[in-house]
Amino acid sequence: MVRRIEGKTTAAAVIDKVKAEAARLERDHGVKPGLAVVIVGEDPASQTYVASKSRTAKECGFHSVQHSLPEGTSQDDLAALVDKLNADPAIHGVLVQLPLPKGLDSEPIIQAIKPEKDVDGLHVVNAGKLATGDLKTGLISCTPAGAMIMVRMVHGQDLSGLHAVVVGRSNLFGKPMGQLLLNANATVTMAHSRTKDLASICRMADILVVAVGRQQMVRGDWVKPGATVIDVGINRIDAPERGEGRTRLVGDVNYTEAAEVAGAITPVPGGVGLMTIAMLMANTVTAAYQQSGLAAPDFGAL
Amino acid sequence: MVRRIEGKTTAAAVIDKVKAEAARLERDHGVKPGLAVVIVGEDPASQTYVASKSRTAKECGFHSVQHSLPEGTSQDDLAALVDKLNADPAIHGVLVQLPLPKGLDSEPIIQAIKPEKDVDGLHVVNAGKLATGDLKTGLISCTPAGAMIMVRMVHGQDLSGLHAVVVGRSNLFGKPMGQLLLNANATVTMAHSRTKDLASICRMADILVVAVGRQQMVRGDWVKPGATVIDVGINRIDAPERGEGRTRLVGDVNYTEAAEVAGAITPVPGGVGLMTIAMLMANTVTAAYQQSGLAAPDFGAL
Repeated sequence: MVRRIEGKTTAAAVIDKVKAEAARLERDHGVKPGLAVVIVGEDPASQTYVASKSRTAKECGFHSVQHSLPEGTSQDDLAALVDKLNADPAIHGVLVQLPLPKGLDSEPIIQAIKPEKDVDGLHVVNAGKLATGDLKTGLISCTPAGAMIMVRMVHGQDLSGLHAVVVGRSNLFGKPMGQLLLNANATVTMAHSRTKDLASICRMADILVVAVGRQQMVRGDWVKPGATVIDVGINRIDAPERGEGRTRLVGDVNYTEAAEVAGAITPVPGGVGLMTIAMLMANTVTAAYQQSGLAAPDFGAL
Repeated sequence: MVRRIEGKTTAAAVIDKVKAEAARLERDHGVKPGLAVVIVGEDPASQTYVASKSRTAKECGFHSVQHSLPEGTSQDDLAALVDKLNADPAIHGVLVQLPLPKGLDSEPIIQAIKPEKDVDGLHVVNAGKLATGDLKTGLISCTPAGAMIMVRMVHGQDLSGLHAVVVGRSNLFGKPMGQLLLNANATVTMAHSRTKDLASICRMADILVVAVGRQQMVRGDWVKPGATVIDVGINRIDAPERGEGRTRLVGDVNYTEAAEVAGAITPVPGGVGLMTIAMLMANTVTAAYQQSGLAAPDFGAL
C-alpha cells in the first residue's frame, strides 16, 4: 500500500513550528518577525497569492505588511520601496510578488533585496550559499525546501546510499532541489529535456522528483518499486467527465499508475504546492532569528 | 586506440588565445589586463605556485603585480590590501594564494574580493551565478573551467544526450564541474563517498570526471567502453621501482587499466592540472573585458 504524503498535514506541522518559534523569539528576545509583501498591479492570481501570504503571516503572529502599488509604477519607485524595506529593522523578510507587470524588470529588483531579507531565496548570494552547502546563513527557495521536508518525512535526515533523480533543471526548483539532496548525502542525477532514455534514468531513483510542467509525463513503469515520488508539477487539463468545459489539476506524474509501484507519493493537488507558503513563513522566522544574531530553528527536522 | 588529452597542448592553446585577446584589448581599447597575486608567509609550495602565476601573467602581456606579505601579517592588514586592490582600476583580477598561514581566516578575505575581480571564482556571488547558469557575467573556478575545455575538445559544445558522472562533491571542483556539465545539457550524476555501488554508477558515464583524492581508485572495469575520462586527482605515491625513497604522481584513476577501455583520457601528471594557471589567465582577460564594459571572449570554444 503506497504512503500518500499529504501537503496539508505537512504544511500544518511547519506552520505549528513557525508559530512556536515566532512566539519564543518575541517572548525571549522581544523580536516579532516582520514580513513585507510587495505587489504591483491587478493580476487576480497574484492578488490571491499575496492575500494568502499576508493572512498566513498574521496567523503566525508576524508583523505583516502589504504594499500594493498601482500598475504603471516605475522601476525607480519600486526600487525605492525595496530600499526602504531593506533599511526597516522591523522587517526581516521582503517578498516581491512575481511576475511583475510588463515594463518592469524583475531581476534587478530581486537582486536589490538584501540577501538576509530575501525570504524567496532568489538572490544570487543565497543561490551561491546553497550551491556551496552553506545552509546555516542563507535562505533557501521555498518550494524545494518544502519538497525536501517531504523527502525527509520518509527517509530521515541522512540520505546516504540513496539515489535521487531530479527531472527538470530550473533555477526556481530543479537546481536548488538537486543541491539540497546532494547536501543530504544522496547520489543525485539531474535529468531534463535533453536527457536520453529518461524512463531508464527515472527507474534508477530511490527518490524521484519531477518538475517539468508536462502533465502526467512520468508513467508507472518509470518508477522503481518502493521509490518515493515527489511531484512538483501543477497542470490544468480538460475534464469532460466532470461536465462540459470543466477542468482539473494533475501533476507531472501519472498518479494512478505511479501509486501502484511507489512506496510513497505526493498527490496533485494537495501535495508539494501546499508547502510553499509554509516555507515562506519558516524563512521569515529564520531571517528574524539570523538578523537578531541568534541560531535559527531547524525546519528540516519537524 | 585511446585518445590522450594532453594538458600541455590544451593549456598552450588557451594561453595563445589569452595573449591574442589581451593584445586586442590593449590595441582597441587601451586596457592592459591587470592581475594582482597576494601571498602571505613562506610556504615553499605556495611560493612556487605564485611565482609561476606572476610569470605567466607577464608572458601573457598583463600588468602583473605580486604582493608578498610576511608571516604574521594581521587579518586587518591583509583585508586592507584587498580593499586597495579592489579600488585600483589597473587591477582586474585579485588572487589571494591559499592556504593562508595559521591565524588568518581565509573565508572573509575571499568574500571581501570584489566578485568581478575574483579570478579564482571562489566568491559566493560567482558560485551563485554559476549555479543559476549565468556564465556571462560571472567568473568560473579555474580547474573545472579547464576540465570543461578538455571535455569539449572531445564532445563539442553541446553535451545533449550524454550522461556525465562527477565523483567528488567539493566546492572547489565537483560541484562547479557538475553545474558546468549540466549547463552544457549533459545529464549529470553527482557521486561521492556516500554513494552506494559507485562502480555501477561510474559505468553509466559517457563522461567520467573523478576528483576524490584517492590514488587509482577508479579501475578499468568502472569505465564504460569508449567513455571520456577526466582525472582531476594528483596523489604522490611511493615508487621503489625508481629507487629507494623515490615517489611518483598518480591520479584518482588507474590510468593503465582505464586507457584500455576509455575513448579518451587525461593523464596524471600532464593533464587537467596544467589547465589551472591557463584558466586563471583566461579569467583575468575575461574580467578585464567585463570591467571595461565589453563582451568577454569565449574560452569554451578554442
